Amino acid sequence: MEYLAKINRMEPCELIETKEAKGLPEKCGKKIKDIGADGLEKQFKDEYIICLFDRGKDMSSEEFARFLEDTDSSGSRNKTFVVGGFLGLADRILKRSNLLLSFSRMTFSHELTRVILLEQIFRALTINKGRLYAK
Amino acid sequence: MEYLAKINRMEPCELIETKEAKGLPEKCGKKIKDIGADGLEKQFKDEYIICLFDRGKDMSSEEFARFLEDTDSSGSRNKTFVVGGFLGLADRILKRSNLLLSFSRMTFSHELTRVILLEQIFRALTINKGRLYAK
Repeated sequence: MEYLAKINRMEPCELIETKEAKGLPEKCGKKIKDIGADGLEKQFKDEYIICLFDRGKDMSSEEFARFLEDTDSSGSRNKTFVVGGFLGLADRILKRSNLLLSFSRMTFSHELTRVILLEQIFRALTINKGRLYAK
Repeated sequence: MEYLAKINRMEPCELIETKEAKGLPEKCGKKIKDIGADGLEKQFKDEYIICLFDRGKDMSSEEFARFLEDTDSSGSRNKTFVVGGFLGLADRILKRSNLLLSFSRMTFSHELTRVILLEQIFRALTINKGRLYAK
């Protein structure tokens, strides 16, 4: 994954795929989201959690870069970005998150959301690096 | 390109890469955009032109699907989507367009914008197909 390698040249960043429900029909939506939530919770420690959510906060790339910088400087917690499956995230994951972030009013596939997220993180780090150099 | 093949199973869709400026420094922004505009204008006939533009209109995927359906039924013009280069599009291309469309407040690379556009067109055609079947 090209962006992940680019990010890792600036900041350590890891991609974790958690357990997802398989073989269940779509009508079992709650069960599917609960199984996904169990898999996510096993990974969580005390990170700052950012869930991608279509009705979340929208930001420009500049604002996102500033947000990353500000949360970095205000504490040493790692940041975890969470992208849900095709039915989205369980309510308890959304409630646990520190920020709900939206890229677009449009619905993107979760595969594409992952690529966009990595591109935006890379872009933000590049913006912030430029800002630091410019000081 | 996976989405392009998927779209073509429903509607004819062609990807055209037009001439772009090469070897010019970024400070020659107007010249770069003008060369890009010349390349685009050679392709235009009397299509309905939709330019991707970060300060354009935002739509949900449902609204975008409805827009494609409505413009299809109101005339027989083809639709052309235009994605600019890394400096964006020349003013004369933006002025000539019938719609300025924005995916996000964030800035995406033009490579990623192309993938998102194709995914949204495929999604819209799928939504519209479902709507027609449901009648």
